[in-house]
Amino acid sequence: MENITELLKWRYATKRMNGEKVAPEKINKILEAAHLAPSGIGLQPYEIIVISDPEIKKKILPIAMNQQQIVESSHLLVFAVWDEYTKERIDHVFDHLILKQNKKPDSYANQRNFAKTFFGNMSIEENFHHAAKQANIALGLAIVAAASEDVDSTPMEGFDPAALDEFLQLSEKGLRSSMLLALGYRDQENDWNLKLEKVRKPFEEFVTFL
Amino acid sequence: MENITELLKWRYATKRMNGEKVAPEKINKILEAAHLAPSGIGLQPYEIIVISDPEIKKKILPIAMNQQQIVESSHLLVFAVWDEYTKERIDHVFDHLILKQNKKPDSYANQRNFAKTFFGNMSIEENFHHAAKQANIALGLAIVAAASEDVDSTPMEGFDPAALDEFLQLSEKGLRSSMLLALGYRDQENDWNLKLEKVRKPFEEFVTFL
Repeated sequence: MENITELLKWRYATKRMNGEKVAPEKINKILEAAHLAPSGIGLQPYEIIVISDPEIKKKILPIAMNQQQIVESSHLLVFAVWDEYTKERIDHVFDHLILKQNKKPDSYANQRNFAKTFFGNMSIEENFHHAAKQANIALGLAIVAAASEDVDSTPMEGFDPAALDEFLQLSEKGLRSSMLLALGYRDQENDWNLKLEKVRKPFEEFVTFL
Repeated sequence: MENITELLKWRYATKRMNGEKVAPEKINKILEAAHLAPSGIGLQPYEIIVISDPEIKKKILPIAMNQQQIVESSHLLVFAVWDEYTKERIDHVFDHLILKQNKKPDSYANQRNFAKTFFGNMSIEENFHHAAKQANIALGLAIVAAASEDVDSTPMEGFDPAALDEFLQLSEKGLRSSMLLALGYRDQENDWNLKLEKVRKPFEEFVTFL
C-alpha cells in the first residue's frame, strides 16, 4: 500500500464513473473502516445503507440533481444518522458495551447519564447536526480505505435529504440521510474533473503553529 | 504500511500519553492529509491550530475538562471552522482556484453564485454546523494518517468551545473551535483505556444492503 499522502493525491471527486463493479471484499473493507471510526462517547449515531441495485440508484438520480455518479457508481453509500439521541438508543449502546467487555451492569453509569443529559439538553436539530458530524469522521475513514483499495469515492451532499429519507423510508427507522458516498471507478475518458488540477488553499493559510 | 483495517484496529482513544515528541515530519504528513481532504464545493471552511507549546497546553487543560491528553500529547490540533460562509471567503476560494488552474475570471461563476446563495440562505448557526461537518472529514483523514505514522490520536469534543475561542482569539479571525485532536504516544502502563476491548455496534446493525 502506498502512503496516505499519495493515496489522497490520487483520489479526487470523481464526477463520471465507468460502471465497473467493485469487488465485495473491497466494499467490505471500506465499510469496516467506517465501522471502526471513533465517535463521541462511542455512540456511533449513524448507519450506512449500501445500494448496488441499479433500479434503486435510478430512482435516486433525480433526488440527487441528476449527478451521474449515482447511476455510474458500483455502490452508493447513504450515511444515515440518528434523528435524535434518545435514551433508548444510548442505553442500547451501553448495554452492548457492557456485554462485550463483560462488565457489571452499573459500569459506565456516569457516562450513560452524562450522554442522556448532554443530548437531552440539545434541540432535536442539534442532535441531528451532532450525529452528522460524527458520521463525517467515518466518511473520512471510508474515503481513505477506498483509495487504499484503488477505488474511487465521491462524497456528495447535493441531494434533497427529505426526498431521499422518504424514498428509503429512513424516518421510520429514526434516521436522516446526511451524506452520500459514491464508490466505483473513474471514467478516464469522460471525466472532465480528472483533467483539472487538484487545488487546496495555501498550506500557510491552513495551519498556524503555536 | 499495514492495511487500513489493521491501522484502525491498532488506534484507540488514547486517554494517557507519555509526553514523547512526535517528529515534525510525521506532524506534517498528518496535516497534509487533513489539507487534502475533500469538502463541499471545495471551500475547506476550516483551519488547524497546531499547539506544541507546553505553556499554552497547560492553559487549555482546564478548558478541556482536565483531560490529561491535552498536556501529555506532543501536539494538540484545534480544528477551527468558519463562523460564517461570507461572500468574501467564497470569493477568496474561487479566486485562488482560478489562479491555480489558470482559468478565465468568470470560470466557476455558477458555482460561486450557488455557494453564496446556498450558504446565504442558511442561518449563521447552520453555517457553523456545515463547516464543522466538513472539518470532521479532514479529522478522519488525519486520524488515519496519524496511525500510518504510528502516532496515537484522540479526537476530543469535551471542551468549552466559547472559552477556547476566547483564549485562542479565534473569533477575531472569524473562526470557532469544533474539535480537538491530541497527537502523541500512548502511555502503555497507565492508560486504562488501552486494556479495554474496542467495541463497536454489531456490523449487521451498522449496514443495510439494498
